Amino acid sequence: MGQDQVTAGIVVIGDEILSGRTRDANVQQIAQFLAPLGVTVREVRIVADEEDAIVEAVDALRARCSYVFTTGGIGPTHDDITADAVAKAFGRGISIRADARAILEAWYAKAKTELTPARLKMARIPEGARLIENPVTGAPGFQIENVFVLAGVPQIVRGMLEDIAPRIEGGAVTRSISVRLEGVREGDIAARLSEIQQAHPRTSIGSYPWFEEDEQGGFRRGIVLVARGTDEAALERVGRELETLAP
Amino acid sequence: MGQDQVTAGIVVIGDEILSGRTRDANVQQIAQFLAPLGVTVREVRIVADEEDAIVEAVDALRARCSYVFTTGGIGPTHDDITADAVAKAFGRGISIRADARAILEAWYAKAKTELTPARLKMARIPEGARLIENPVTGAPGFQIENVFVLAGVPQIVRGMLEDIAPRIEGGAVTRSISVRLEGVREGDIAARLSEIQQAHPRTSIGSYPWFEEDEQGGFRRGIVLVARGTDEAALERVGRELETLAP
Repeated sequence: MGQDQVTAGIVVIGDEILSGRTRDANVQQIAQFLAPLGVTVREVRIVADEEDAIVEAVDALRARCSYVFTTGGIGPTHDDITADAVAKAFGRGISIRADARAILEAWYAKAKTELTPARLKMARIPEGARLIENPVTGAPGFQIENVFVLAGVPQIVRGMLEDIAPRIEGGAVTRSISVRLEGVREGDIAARLSEIQQAHPRTSIGSYPWFEEDEQGGFRRGIVLVARGTDEAALERVGRELETLAP
Repeated sequence: MGQDQVTAGIVVIGDEILSGRTRDANVQQIAQFLAPLGVTVREVRIVADEEDAIVEAVDALRARCSYVFTTGGIGPTHDDITADAVAKAFGRGISIRADARAILEAWYAKAKTELTPARLKMARIPEGARLIENPVTGAPGFQIENVFVLAGVPQIVRGMLEDIAPRIEGGAVTRSISVRLEGVREGDIAARLSEIQQAHPRTSIGSYPWFEEDEQGGFRRGIVLVARGTDEAALERVGRELETLAP
């Protein structure tokens, strides 16, 4: 992969993921959103709901990636500390901002729900940040420089990604093809696979073994080979070579 | 959470996760394995199949966590570079080791399969590492100091965890209780929830909104409150207080 790639980092903020209670869904969702825009996810960090941990992860990834996406921790409860942590990472002030407050007032008026002090916390937006629309529950996310601060609930993340798509300047789109082989072990084809990889250095080939239980309690196995690159014609050539590895 | 906690870091090595092609299953599996042993996952990093990225993540997490688990990249193909990367992180040599070779010879003899040079690569084990048994496909993982190097396929990870359970010295077990509220928004209960949290500083309370689509295309919503701590009696008290937040 080239050095001129447009890259992304993702910071997942959530004790519920680290505890094993919840299986993260946002990394895959964001990666699949970014791929057709020509942005490659380079690194993901999952950190606890602790200010120092969030600041460190955001600072590390915003320095090395074109874009950073955070998920989680922007709601109204005491464990929602992401907005303040991101403001701290950028050394910016944070307060209840009039534009965000107006969004919440209109949203809750329509829902005939009181805008409590806890809900008003969701209008705390760092100085100079640009709001991100939340079509699901109203409370906005925000963007500071190359960092997009999103909700944690996957349905809200999906809505927010729609709003920020036009703000992403991607690079060449990395495409992939996959070839699924059954009844083959990696050791059977590793040497020939390595030759194919060496003959096509601009295409990145990965090998992923799979296992499936069958109804008799035994199991079937195989490999999925995935080739990735920005040159579609080259990918097709590699795909044809990978198909010759079938038994 | 106390400073005397026994903690773990997880390094997921896999372009297929970063690309969005595959949704990781090992973080949840490892976290659920560690919780009853009294080990709390503190941070997860998902990195590409690149030596520098692996070395950096392993070095960062092994310094700050009691244990580190890596998943992925220990098979026979060209993209399997984890063993060499971990050896480099520890400044140790790596070569085909007799004990690992003997395991592979016995495994493949039984399976009447040739031990090819590619398969023999899976006997490359860093100096001084302790092997981890792989009951699914034979090729072992390994442990160096506080770092456990596991396969990427979830079924194999599960088997390897069985072997290493006796090597983990955990701390006090963090237990959790959850209270599911329907038809409540976080903003409705945030103030009272914050008071409960302040009254019980040794219990960590998280609030997680949920949304479910119903058959009419509308949706239901609510919150799951999760309290975590090592003192079971305190947890039960907090649980009773959380239940008073139901509408």
